Amino acid sequence: MSDTPHPELDVRARELDRAHVFHSWSAQALLDPPVLAGGLGSTVWDHAGNRWLDFSSQLVNVNIGHQHPAVVKAIHEQADLLTTVAPSTAALVRGEAARRITAHAPSGFSKVFFTNGGADANENAIRMARLHTGRDKVLSTYRSYHGNTGAAIVATGDWRRIPNEYAYGHAHFFGPYPYRSEFWSDSPEQEAERALRHLERVIQSEGPAGIAAILLETVPGTAGILVPPPGYLAGVRALADRYDIVLILDEVMAGFGRTGRWFAFDGYDVVPDLITFAKGVNSGYVPVGGVILSDDIAADFDETVFPGGLTYSGHPLAMASIVGSIDAMEAEGIVENAHRIGVDAIGPGLRDLESRHPLIGEVRGEGVFWAIELVSDRASRAPLSAGAMGQIKKGLFTRGLLPFVQDNRIHVVPPCVVTADEVGRALSIYDDVLAVAERG
Amino acid sequence: MSDTPHPELDVRARELDRAHVFHSWSAQALLDPPVLAGGLGSTVWDHAGNRWLDFSSQLVNVNIGHQHPAVVKAIHEQADLLTTVAPSTAALVRGEAARRITAHAPSGFSKVFFTNGGADANENAIRMARLHTGRDKVLSTYRSYHGNTGAAIVATGDWRRIPNEYAYGHAHFFGPYPYRSEFWSDSPEQEAERALRHLERVIQSEGPAGIAAILLETVPGTAGILVPPPGYLAGVRALADRYDIVLILDEVMAGFGRTGRWFAFDGYDVVPDLITFAKGVNSGYVPVGGVILSDDIAADFDETVFPGGLTYSGHPLAMASIVGSIDAMEAEGIVENAHRIGVDAIGPGLRDLESRHPLIGEVRGEGVFWAIELVSDRASRAPLSAGAMGQIKKGLFTRGLLPFVQDNRIHVVPPCVVTADEVGRALSIYDDVLAVAERG
Repeated sequence: MSDTPHPELDVRARELDRAHVFHSWSAQALLDPPVLAGGLGSTVWDHAGNRWLDFSSQLVNVNIGHQHPAVVKAIHEQADLLTTVAPSTAALVRGEAARRITAHAPSGFSKVFFTNGGADANENAIRMARLHTGRDKVLSTYRSYHGNTGAAIVATGDWRRIPNEYAYGHAHFFGPYPYRSEFWSDSPEQEAERALRHLERVIQSEGPAGIAAILLETVPGTAGILVPPPGYLAGVRALADRYDIVLILDEVMAGFGRTGRWFAFDGYDVVPDLITFAKGVNSGYVPVGGVILSDDIAADFDETVFPGGLTYSGHPLAMASIVGSIDAMEAEGIVENAHRIGVDAIGPGLRDLESRHPLIGEVRGEGVFWAIELVSDRASRAPLSAGAMGQIKKGLFTRGLLPFVQDNRIHVVPPCVVTADEVGRALSIYDDVLAVAERG
Repeated sequence: MSDTPHPELDVRARELDRAHVFHSWSAQALLDPPVLAGGLGSTVWDHAGNRWLDFSSQLVNVNIGHQHPAVVKAIHEQADLLTTVAPSTAALVRGEAARRITAHAPSGFSKVFFTNGGADANENAIRMARLHTGRDKVLSTYRSYHGNTGAAIVATGDWRRIPNEYAYGHAHFFGPYPYRSEFWSDSPEQEAERALRHLERVIQSEGPAGIAAILLETVPGTAGILVPPPGYLAGVRALADRYDIVLILDEVMAGFGRTGRWFAFDGYDVVPDLITFAKGVNSGYVPVGGVILSDDIAADFDETVFPGGLTYSGHPLAMASIVGSIDAMEAEGIVENAHRIGVDAIGPGLRDLESRHPLIGEVRGEGVFWAIELVSDRASRAPLSAGAMGQIKKGLFTRGLLPFVQDNRIHVVPPCVVTADEVGRALSIYDDVLAVAERG
């Protein structure tokens, strides 16, 4: 693919993009997006043949790496049979995908509701929690991202609007973040204890009898890869139980290998009531997401209509890519690789950088899910300026690394198939660029 | 594909479905979904080799027919290059898709924001209208469907929530529906005039200075294929102009050939400010939707960040399927076929059925977008009972037609590639089943 350089196609791609494409979360005239034309594993390239190590996994979704042949093959095969089918039908490939997903879920989770991505997965989990409890309020943390939809069903006029007029009743609280505590704590243990006390006070103050759900990213991702301190998630589960609140764990970014486990919550002493997923389930090869339902909540809708749905729920191409992806991840030990590479390569490598670079305030993470937090001053922990971060981002890209930069952090989030050699090359690029930034 | 029968796969598909798949808009234990395994053009089949004429286009999305070779080929080719890429990059295929879409839009519409489907297309159009006007309220009709999301962004804790806390401020009004007027009208012209008077009274009563958008399906689809009476949409445009309100036309179901035109609004004297689409743009071969922006609204976000986005915005596989689909629709005159078949075959055929079946209260539509409204009594127009409709649905399916049945209506919505011969076979099945129902 990258053998014959076609730099003119990069020019054409950029022209068409600037003329006709409106981009997410951006000021359109200020963009100069890089062109990508192909990829394999942890590498991507443009039409001219320039190559980058992808340590972003795009938007932290390409867990199985770019263009994994087993997933591409699964898409090819399903494309030849039936690309699309209504959700009201039964499709063999949809059942096969749901079976594989539930096989990795805790016991007592038998059914999957498929959506197009993570946002509508969370929308539907919230809907289920509200209908299950008969309550409206949803608690989630300030440092979180759960998707960007919020109005279409309230705009709807027909009966499907009536059970869904819920876009009020959202309240927010602070989660644990030992490095930048909201609770004046001085250890991870104290942070967990105080964050739980804070959450219970918010529950009491919002009124437990009105709270349907607590919605949490198991490991908050875009917010900073905030690995929960010991005891926190188990404590949230206990609070949810005490007040009869549904616990939804958002595994959109953290799930399917990212933490070195199938689900991030497998590493903590907690089982949620609803699990939302997207990204890693098929590495985004086809848009898809979903909710895994505990049998208790699923049973609510045995005889009662579930008032939610979408045209592409359980889309055959997406389902085939899930089947291909989960089978390959199992057969090739890809989740185990993510775990091992975190323990053996990324963790030690980042701690080494931390020991040598005063710009680094903290490194944290697990598996292939790490953050380097950059500060202008280690004592005050003042975040590095946006200008300096822009220079670092540019420096990484110029040296052949496609980075994920967010606020004052570099997120080190390569595919789960990344090799120790690739991690070594990336560490050396981070090292160089941090050294330049420190001299500058 | 359907040559070797594998009835055991139908059994397996049904077993897995019942064990693991949670379905849209359904009571799960009461379902007995048909198994579909493959299709071509206007025909679908199961693993045992049973075949049906697909006069549902699944969920009114398979405009180009099942498994069109050009679209399947486009998916194959892109799958071999790069299946997924972050929205922050430039991808040649994304620019090519956006260029083709804007080529069919009115002049002054240069940019496309891609989403995963119709719901998030409407979400983002509403977001754009609110930011453009600085107002909150959205007016839409009671007889409408715009998607099923409504809470995820308000659940979000980080800054992206702040400009999006909008899930209040939705008000609803009645649109025109000559057959079941809300306005005591006795002609389509009077219905249009009174519906416009009603809308203006709602605008005045809600307070024009607070209204961001009027959101309308150009031809309300699931609500009953409610072809707007002469003058209505032009009148809505005039009201939107008078009160500085953004007009969003939802072309998710009506667009890309369904009415026999590229956009349904091409048949009416109206140009909106924002156009939403999904389904027909690529026949749902890969989940995708989007918003086509007027240059005036797009310019708002040249220097200011647009506060919306999603991981799979402009997904390469989806983009390739749009390119393949639009090119084939142009090359093969598929939109023109939909127009012709409506004029020459479906329209006359349905009017013939209407003349002979007292159960039919009204037939209406255009292109491959028609409704047969069934009544227990023509004088009172009382809708046919749910029980009788269930029998009719079953009768159609048993005779080899996959129907779209909604409330007391049969929607006649085959792919745009449907032939006169296939329409003839379908009409004969409708005829038989209505005759049975009338005897019963």
